[in-house]
Amino acid sequence: MLALKIHHIGYLVKKINGAIRSFENLGYRIVQETVYDDIRKVDICFMEKDGYCIELVSPVSEESVVYGLLKKYKNSPYHICYETEDFDKDYQALVSNGFIAIDEPTPAPALQNREVVFLTSPSMGMIELLIHQYS
Amino acid sequence: MLALKIHHIGYLVKKINGAIRSFENLGYRIVQETVYDDIRKVDICFMEKDGYCIELVSPVSEESVVYGLLKKYKNSPYHICYETEDFDKDYQALVSNGFIAIDEPTPAPALQNREVVFLTSPSMGMIELLIHQYS
Repeated sequence: MLALKIHHIGYLVKKINGAIRSFENLGYRIVQETVYDDIRKVDICFMEKDGYCIELVSPVSEESVVYGLLKKYKNSPYHICYETEDFDKDYQALVSNGFIAIDEPTPAPALQNREVVFLTSPSMGMIELLIHQYS
Repeated sequence: MLALKIHHIGYLVKKINGAIRSFENLGYRIVQETVYDDIRKVDICFMEKDGYCIELVSPVSEESVVYGLLKKYKNSPYHICYETEDFDKDYQALVSNGFIAIDEPTPAPALQNREVVFLTSPSMGMIELLIHQYS
């Protein structure tokens, strides 16, 4: 049995500052100011509205891992991120359920350097798995 | 000032029954069983987890309005839907904020035939606007 909790909805945007203003106009508030992720070459800003947490993700160069995705999807939500308290167990359970990892667990600078991994399944597409932060 | 409330995240899926099982495996529960929308030629199922409502949308024919989107995006979230208590006012405010309607307000069979309209903006992409249901 998986013990996942939704952490955020990833949302690709071309220009992060313009997107932040647009989301603010719709009633979102910033919960974490823009952080540059030098591993993925993206700017990341977390916003919140009505209990939904949205992660704006904007590639800053053509070398970014999501540059191709942005060219294809344009501005759009593109994944749901799940937080897990038992990373190894849930990772294995997802693999048993048909998910395939599309990268290696890697620290996420915008998430206190907690490790994240992206997986994909034929029935759901791409998800992100985030290790729980112990306080 | 817009008065929008997030209603759901739209999520394209190729096969709705397989997708429902996959989302259930991740801890989602069905909040509304699959309904066929004969205007958009899609099957729609609403699921919920951790306060996030997800609308699974699956085209049932190549004539579906989202068939092309599914071919491009594959299984993926693709819009956020906002509910409004003042449709005309918020619609006009969105247009003033740079949104362009990409269809006409049309009843949604999966949402008690309430009217919805899709709009897009250069900084945010596509959103759905849903008229509030008065009880």
